[in-house]
Amino acid sequence: MNPSEIVIFLVSISIMLFGARSLGELVRKVNQPIIVGEILAGILLGPTLFGTIAPETYNSIFSSSKNISIALSGITNLAVIMLLLVSGLEVDLSLIVKQGKQAALTSIMGIVLPFAIGFGASYLFPYQMGINNESMKLVFALFIGTALSISALPVIVKTLIDLNIFKTQIGFTILASAMVDDLAGWIIFSIILSMLGTSVHHLSFEMTIALTLGFIAFTLIVVRKLINYILPIIQEKLTFPGGVLNLILILGFLSAAFTEYIGIHAIFGAFIMGIAIGDSAALSENTREIIHQFVTNIFAPLFLVSIGLRVNFIQNFDLVLVLIFIILAFAGKLIGCGFGAYWGGANRREAIVIGFGMNSKGAMEIILGLLALEYGLIQEKVFVALVIMALVTSISSAPLMNMFLSDKSKYSFSRLLNPKYIFISDSADKFAVITELVNRIEKDTGIDKDQIISEVWEREKDFPTGIANSLAIPHARIDIKKPVIAVAYHTSGIDFGALDGIPSRVIVLLLTPKTNNELQLKLLAEIAATFRDKERSEEILTFTKKEEFASRLLKLATLSNA
Amino acid sequence: MNPSEIVIFLVSISIMLFGARSLGELVRKVNQPIIVGEILAGILLGPTLFGTIAPETYNSIFSSSKNISIALSGITNLAVIMLLLVSGLEVDLSLIVKQGKQAALTSIMGIVLPFAIGFGASYLFPYQMGINNESMKLVFALFIGTALSISALPVIVKTLIDLNIFKTQIGFTILASAMVDDLAGWIIFSIILSMLGTSVHHLSFEMTIALTLGFIAFTLIVVRKLINYILPIIQEKLTFPGGVLNLILILGFLSAAFTEYIGIHAIFGAFIMGIAIGDSAALSENTREIIHQFVTNIFAPLFLVSIGLRVNFIQNFDLVLVLIFIILAFAGKLIGCGFGAYWGGANRREAIVIGFGMNSKGAMEIILGLLALEYGLIQEKVFVALVIMALVTSISSAPLMNMFLSDKSKYSFSRLLNPKYIFISDSADKFAVITELVNRIEKDTGIDKDQIISEVWEREKDFPTGIANSLAIPHARIDIKKPVIAVAYHTSGIDFGALDGIPSRVIVLLLTPKTNNELQLKLLAEIAATFRDKERSEEILTFTKKEEFASRLLKLATLSNA
Repeated sequence: MNPSEIVIFLVSISIMLFGARSLGELVRKVNQPIIVGEILAGILLGPTLFGTIAPETYNSIFSSSKNISIALSGITNLAVIMLLLVSGLEVDLSLIVKQGKQAALTSIMGIVLPFAIGFGASYLFPYQMGINNESMKLVFALFIGTALSISALPVIVKTLIDLNIFKTQIGFTILASAMVDDLAGWIIFSIILSMLGTSVHHLSFEMTIALTLGFIAFTLIVVRKLINYILPIIQEKLTFPGGVLNLILILGFLSAAFTEYIGIHAIFGAFIMGIAIGDSAALSENTREIIHQFVTNIFAPLFLVSIGLRVNFIQNFDLVLVLIFIILAFAGKLIGCGFGAYWGGANRREAIVIGFGMNSKGAMEIILGLLALEYGLIQEKVFVALVIMALVTSISSAPLMNMFLSDKSKYSFSRLLNPKYIFISDSADKFAVITELVNRIEKDTGIDKDQIISEVWEREKDFPTGIANSLAIPHARIDIKKPVIAVAYHTSGIDFGALDGIPSRVIVLLLTPKTNNELQLKLLAEIAATFRDKERSEEILTFTKKEEFASRLLKLATLSNA
Repeated sequence: MNPSEIVIFLVSISIMLFGARSLGELVRKVNQPIIVGEILAGILLGPTLFGTIAPETYNSIFSSSKNISIALSGITNLAVIMLLLVSGLEVDLSLIVKQGKQAALTSIMGIVLPFAIGFGASYLFPYQMGINNESMKLVFALFIGTALSISALPVIVKTLIDLNIFKTQIGFTILASAMVDDLAGWIIFSIILSMLGTSVHHLSFEMTIALTLGFIAFTLIVVRKLINYILPIIQEKLTFPGGVLNLILILGFLSAAFTEYIGIHAIFGAFIMGIAIGDSAALSENTREIIHQFVTNIFAPLFLVSIGLRVNFIQNFDLVLVLIFIILAFAGKLIGCGFGAYWGGANRREAIVIGFGMNSKGAMEIILGLLALEYGLIQEKVFVALVIMALVTSISSAPLMNMFLSDKSKYSFSRLLNPKYIFISDSADKFAVITELVNRIEKDTGIDKDQIISEVWEREKDFPTGIANSLAIPHARIDIKKPVIAVAYHTSGIDFGALDGIPSRVIVLLLTPKTNNELQLKLLAEIAATFRDKERSEEILTFTKKEEFASRLLKLATLSNA
């Protein structure tokens, strides 16, 4: 690259990162997954908008020289490989095994039905579904089937955490099923790729399949055990975390090279190797964190933005096709996973939540589409429809799940803790501290404070709410929609009639909706559980700043509510 | 890139990372800076060895297609830009300002003399120094002068930490001076580049110089303040650490693009922007850590290995030239910085240590040489000589400094703490615990244990060594070369006559060389200082596992010895 190429190369990377970050943060503000913003940034920066408004500037930045395009494609190639490697790290094989019948049925139905729908529709109506080359009808139908079966683990994880159901039974079912569906989806896709005969040395279809299955078995059994054995040694003997970081990338790149070589694309190898590495208990959090942050914040955005740079989303927008894909996606996952979960023992409400939860297609869908586009399997309008479908399913997943989640699953002590409502108090007595607590959150409830105080006080007079280990939980059910919590740390302690006779220093006011008895019981239990361990409770009480108290409390609550 | 190119691209990156890590760890085992190993890996993997032994395999991996070379060069370009960005982050402007006359004289002399020597030798004997194009004599001489003036901050930091003098007066002087010399060296080099007229739009020499100085002033004054203002906001409002990571890279890439555009190479802009960003107190350790680990473990090795891939180090090896460069490098830095430090108030010994400390040339030298080679300023044999000179100065720095460092600077409590010699004891009395302590370290001293015990006991009987806050330091000067320390945690506490009357629970045995009174006093003071704070001392005493005790003790010692 000559100096002027280097200048443009650097500027284009900067613009891509800047666009991804800006849009990513924007969508985050409205509680959407960041990757949605990153993909949108690419559409805005690509031929769809920027390239249409200012074609000359656009061309001089993103397609002025072949060298720059090659260098950029080198980086986005590495980026997508690393993205799949990190996605693989997130797959937890033992979690899959531990989840029982419900997850098994959810995941199987979550593949079978969407695949059947996608395959059937494309095989019967190939033109309507946008086939590119009619001699490839079978491969095309297989591809659409796969595209509807796959799900996007990273987006799903994010959604579950946002909804605070990551470590609940529903969460585990969704997670385990999504992992299985991802793995199965990629395996089916690798078979499709081998049917296309894209291997470097033109291996036969049977040979490619045999090598693929051999690679999966070898990596997930032999290599996984080897890594589990070798990782602690590397972490101890080599520079930390440099040695492990290199090991992860080297293994990832080499298996990517291998799968690319046998004709099933590099990312598949990276994904499988990611699973094998991520499974090791020896892999330290610190290492995961470094690689995760760098990949999701630097490499992934570069790849996600590059998607939008390839296609004009307005020119290739076909409303009917977009609607068909969205409807098929929703139908497949909602019915498939929903019934799977229902048969597995979930109630109707939970089954619907699981169905919507499994519907996020995120970046996986798009990566698949991109490859299909490159191999001439689909037209650009199908690619555009797939991207839009991926965005719609990812965006709609959290709000739709939220609609069907019960309050009990939605709220937890740790989630309701708000630093704004945590304070230090030296009130003279029980009534004074309760008044102080109510004063803090009065505005949030929209109810007259005297009324709240009297409700809490009535309860407190009859049954004192001191628990043990310095904790008291004055509480009441009042006329509100969402539960509210305030916490006072009392400097000298107040007698709330605790069982161990010790004055209470952590006083948690809990107000819950009048109609929901179950929710109150659940939250009371969670708060009590947080302070069950004497030593840990005492640790919370030693702090120097208010912020420290708040963060320790939150940490302990998160731990014990998990 | 087609599939077979992607395969080779991934394999070559994997091999580069693997080679860098292997050689890097190898040299680390013999206490050498890792970058030395990474550069050596490149030489072994390049035309020098691998390319000579197996030219066909070599070509098929590293130079089979133009696309792969371009993609690799895109990545190494980003790598070296990020490397300089991270190096810039390590520069601490306030440290430079705080260091007084000594650092000022050291850094000025550390540029003036090496530059004069390099310039003089190259201007007077251009052929012997390996000039490529005699019409460029002035630029060539300026370049050699700069090459001898620059130093490698990352290697120097590593050496100082290894020698345990990072936070001493000598360490600060070396650090501040190296920062100034690096900055000055790059500014001079940017002037040289502008003389070559390499700007994208062929700006005039004067214009380039004006823009360069303007860029430096603007970045270090205006942008630095802006970053300091904006960083806390970004850390709070945007995703953390993603937002900051992107900000750092975007700013780094954009300033790199700017300086490349005005004709003084991208890395200069990244370096200056790194300084401006790193200066902000708001930049969190976590963010620094992520970017530092990823760049030094992934990108830097790719760049460092790529150096060796360019040149055959045997074919272009010119012993005389290598010796000349090594001699000039040592002469310039040792005499220049040594005298500077001496005039600034250092004693002769310290001055020599500072001189050797400033001599590491590390990767900076090589980056400079690489650019000079690309611009046709030097021949390949000069480049080879520069690389070897950089390796020799980096390797020799630590051992030479160590030779001249006094024992007092070399040893500290935290450095002497060895987990092997830290244990839990429940001995019955003072004599028993001292015996136990001596038993632990007897082998390390090579002296009869009864003799040691009697020496310690004599001292203890006359003047009990209990200090306060549960600490006692039984000690003796015996016939050993290096000081030794053992630590017992006594479960119930033993009366060592401490001033606060509290039985001692942390009993530190300190044995120092007979001849060195000063060293004993210094270490006693350091151990006492570690336990000066009552609260912190008590914190050490609450632990559940022996390892926890050891690590807390080490942490506190490191903190208070700093």
